Amino acid sequence: MEKRNATAAVIGAGDYIGAEIAKKFAGQGFTVYAGRRNGEKLAPLVEEIERAGGTIVGKSIDARKEEEVVSFLSDADKHAPLDVCIFNIGANVNFPIVETTERVFRKVWEMACYSGFLTGREAARLMLPRGQGNIFFTGATASLRGGSGYAAFASAKFGLRAVAQSAARELWPKNIHVAHLIIDSGVDTAWVRERRKERHGQEAVDNLHPDALMPPASVAESYWQLYQQPRSAWVFEQEIRPYGEKW
Amino acid sequence: MEKRNATAAVIGAGDYIGAEIAKKFAGQGFTVYAGRRNGEKLAPLVEEIERAGGTIVGKSIDARKEEEVVSFLSDADKHAPLDVCIFNIGANVNFPIVETTERVFRKVWEMACYSGFLTGREAARLMLPRGQGNIFFTGATASLRGGSGYAAFASAKFGLRAVAQSAARELWPKNIHVAHLIIDSGVDTAWVRERRKERHGQEAVDNLHPDALMPPASVAESYWQLYQQPRSAWVFEQEIRPYGEKW
Amino acid sequence: MEKRNATAAVIGAGDYIGAEIAKKFAGQGFTVYAGRRNGEKLAPLVEEIERAGGTIVGKSIDARKEEEVVSFLSDADKHAPLDVCIFNIGANVNFPIVETTERVFRKVWEMACYSGFLTGREAARLMLPRGQGNIFFTGATASLRGGSGYAAFASAKFGLRAVAQSAARELWPKNIHVAHLIIDSGVDTAWVRERRKERHGQEAVDNLHPDALMPPASVAESYWQLYQQPRSAWVFEQEIRPYGEKW
Amino acid sequence: MEKRNATAAVIGAGDYIGAEIAKKFAGQGFTVYAGRRNGEKLAPLVEEIERAGGTIVGKSIDARKEEEVVSFLSDADKHAPLDVCIFNIGANVNFPIVETTERVFRKVWEMACYSGFLTGREAARLMLPRGQGNIFFTGATASLRGGSGYAAFASAKFGLRAVAQSAARELWPKNIHVAHLIIDSGVDTAWVRERRKERHGQEAVDNLHPDALMPPASVAESYWQLYQQPRSAWVFEQEIRPYGEKW
Repeated sequence: MEKRNATAAVIGAGDYIGAEIAKKFAGQGFTVYAGRRNGEKLAPLVEEIERAGGTIVGKSIDARKEEEVVSFLSDADKHAPLDVCIFNIGANVNFPIVETTERVFRKVWEMACYSGFLTGREAARLMLPRGQGNIFFTGATASLRGGSGYAAFASAKFGLRAVAQSAARELWPKNIHVAHLIIDSGVDTAWVRERRKERHGQEAVDNLHPDALMPPASVAESYWQLYQQPRSAWVFEQEIRPYGEKW
Repeated sequence: MEKRNATAAVIGAGDYIGAEIAKKFAGQGFTVYAGRRNGEKLAPLVEEIERAGGTIVGKSIDARKEEEVVSFLSDADKHAPLDVCIFNIGANVNFPIVETTERVFRKVWEMACYSGFLTGREAARLMLPRGQGNIFFTGATASLRGGSGYAAFASAKFGLRAVAQSAARELWPKNIHVAHLIIDSGVDTAWVRERRKERHGQEAVDNLHPDALMPPASVAESYWQLYQQPRSAWVFEQEIRPYGEKW
Repeated sequence: MEKRNATAAVIGAGDYIGAEIAKKFAGQGFTVYAGRRNGEKLAPLVEEIERAGGTIVGKSIDARKEEEVVSFLSDADKHAPLDVCIFNIGANVNFPIVETTERVFRKVWEMACYSGFLTGREAARLMLPRGQGNIFFTGATASLRGGSGYAAFASAKFGLRAVAQSAARELWPKNIHVAHLIIDSGVDTAWVRERRKERHGQEAVDNLHPDALMPPASVAESYWQLYQQPRSAWVFEQEIRPYGEKW
Repeated sequence: MEKRNATAAVIGAGDYIGAEIAKKFAGQGFTVYAGRRNGEKLAPLVEEIERAGGTIVGKSIDARKEEEVVSFLSDADKHAPLDVCIFNIGANVNFPIVETTERVFRKVWEMACYSGFLTGREAARLMLPRGQGNIFFTGATASLRGGSGYAAFASAKFGLRAVAQSAARELWPKNIHVAHLIIDSGVDTAWVRERRKERHGQEAVDNLHPDALMPPASVAESYWQLYQQPRSAWVFEQEIRPYGEKW
């Protein structure tokens, strides 16, 4: 693997999607800065990437705190120029609107939208002086549709999409590729399998069609495609779903 | 004017749009509960409505405070059943994303989105036991487009739209009409005229085509149309603009 | 009823939606010009409107023929100034794309899109010299979504929507209100009831919730609302559905 | 170059975008079947591809004729299994709606929509028995927006997009990747440069920013990305524009 003098930051480096993104960019020679709420949980990811010859720095970060986002990204940028910054924090909850507490509404927004704003803004501040970079945001079905029970989650995801759009309109002409990747499907994670079990029973999970859920690695591939696009034909928004998904 | 045993609440009863909505519903016999940050500024509106034979209660409200929204709407509902609740708070600001402070981002969201969630939820709680009602939200161009310089404002307006969508999907089947009115145009207010003057000079404002800006009363008419729709053919979202507007 | 010196043309004056539109505008004092493929079937509608004191001229028209559209609308305009023109021809079919013949694809387009273009263009030609008018198009769920089995129908309805958009952008500034009304629901017609029976059995139709299908008269009401909007706050597109509809 | 036992058909293999798509897929080892109205104009493309070691068959085709589409694609499929079919015929015209003749409206639809339906349907018929394939359609800004002067063109492009959507919903579950690539920008062709010259003068063309127009090869790259996506994360629609484009 040829190492690059470039850093890829992943904020929201959870066990599935975030980890696969980290592995993909590490495998392409980037130093990966991986952040999640509880940084200790990053140990297996760090080990896997290092064993494969990649470079990764894992850190705890509460991305709802401005100073933590600032220092996480500026550390990354000091290591090597920040070339890619991916915001991947989710906060999927489902409550009828009349049972949604103001605390839940605010917390979901802080995690899924406000943190994304801080991340995008700080990445832009670091990239603008160099005149290049890539800022990507992970979206969901709820980025485009306020479904029943999703007042809090969809509100945050809609809000994040607006941040991405405004950032794209401002930063593309400065050679910074801002994109919003919408995952319009369940992703194959323990959490999603657990919810399916709750709703449809263990048997439904055991008999799940192998292609029914999106493998986290496919999300990482999609980000890699976005990264490779020539600036003469950038994509802002990409909705991905498995071939068998109903939409 | 025939008085109704029904209340129409307007949260965000500012000098232009909010005031016209209040006058429209007062003129149709509703008791209007009008709230704005500084309730003292409601005096001329109260006077105008009462002189015309209408009934209005004007109050100060900081709609970012849950307890104030709860008590404002429950007071309204005690007066007479809350039949209409219109959320009309704006918070239009324009900053490049890298110059948007976390304080601005948060405040705009609290005013334009979080307050709207609180308002919609509390109105729903009051209306559900009676199985009828109308909850309307004021949107803007930025509800659908994250333009350059609008990261904060568009993020809040996108988020409010998601709240409205989720609320509609949950509450329509319970006979509560939730709608989102998008004003895709400048509205004829002192603030808009002032901004045009800043950008294009006094002459541009003096020579403004009489139909270039939307009269606030037309917004009120549009809300009145939404109110009158039969439940067999409700509209969720309506974009309004003057006939000469470019879109 | 006060008669107006104005004509409302309805092209596609079928037994349900078109007939209700005709009745609504006749009841508001317009002379109605009603056209459908087989004009003889208009007899009961003509009788009903005349009995109620309204004025109506019913005619056969094949709206896929340019000369027939031209003469139908210019006749209407000679009677009294053409103030409203509503295009309401549907052509709902469902075939898998690989079983869609070129004949079906072409015919559905001619009925649902090409005829609408001819209608809109001719109405505009008559209205422009007077500097006012209203041109409305009936859309459907398939105007916004190319569903499985709808390659032909959705293609035509998407195409009609584009005609309406272009027409609106060109004609609004000339004081002609162009609008596109999307009916996102089944409408209560014999045809829809028959299809439900085919799919779900007679019992499903017998037990149909009274609010599950949209009454054709509600569509007419929605057109009437569009007609009444002040030009300072026109709506281009309006999606209507019953309160219990899932969307 | 490793040759594949697979054919890529390009219908609408014009001098710019279509030619670049042909070169890209030929360079990846596909036998390319390239069709355009006047097949003789394909000579330089055929020569260029063959000189580079690629395989191409160039043919005249009027894609508005069902039998020509059928035989073009079945010939391609006999040569080697049809794995990719790209529909790339444009028909950009601009007329005010009242000056749009029925002949123009119909012809633009036949070229840009009806031909696309025939192409997609025939490709699907050939691919379904093998259970795999890729059908891609070229869209434009007018696929999403009916602008002033674009009644004919936007109507056809909207209609093509609906065909693509319905086809995708039907064919994805059968392992056929249907996608719609929207080019939201001017493309660097002689025709576009000529129009800019007409509107803004020769100087504007001479001083054109090198990145203002999309290079046709970038469109081909975008198609190649679509082709490479794993079926666990397919994209249906992709809007591409240069980094400096206003949107």
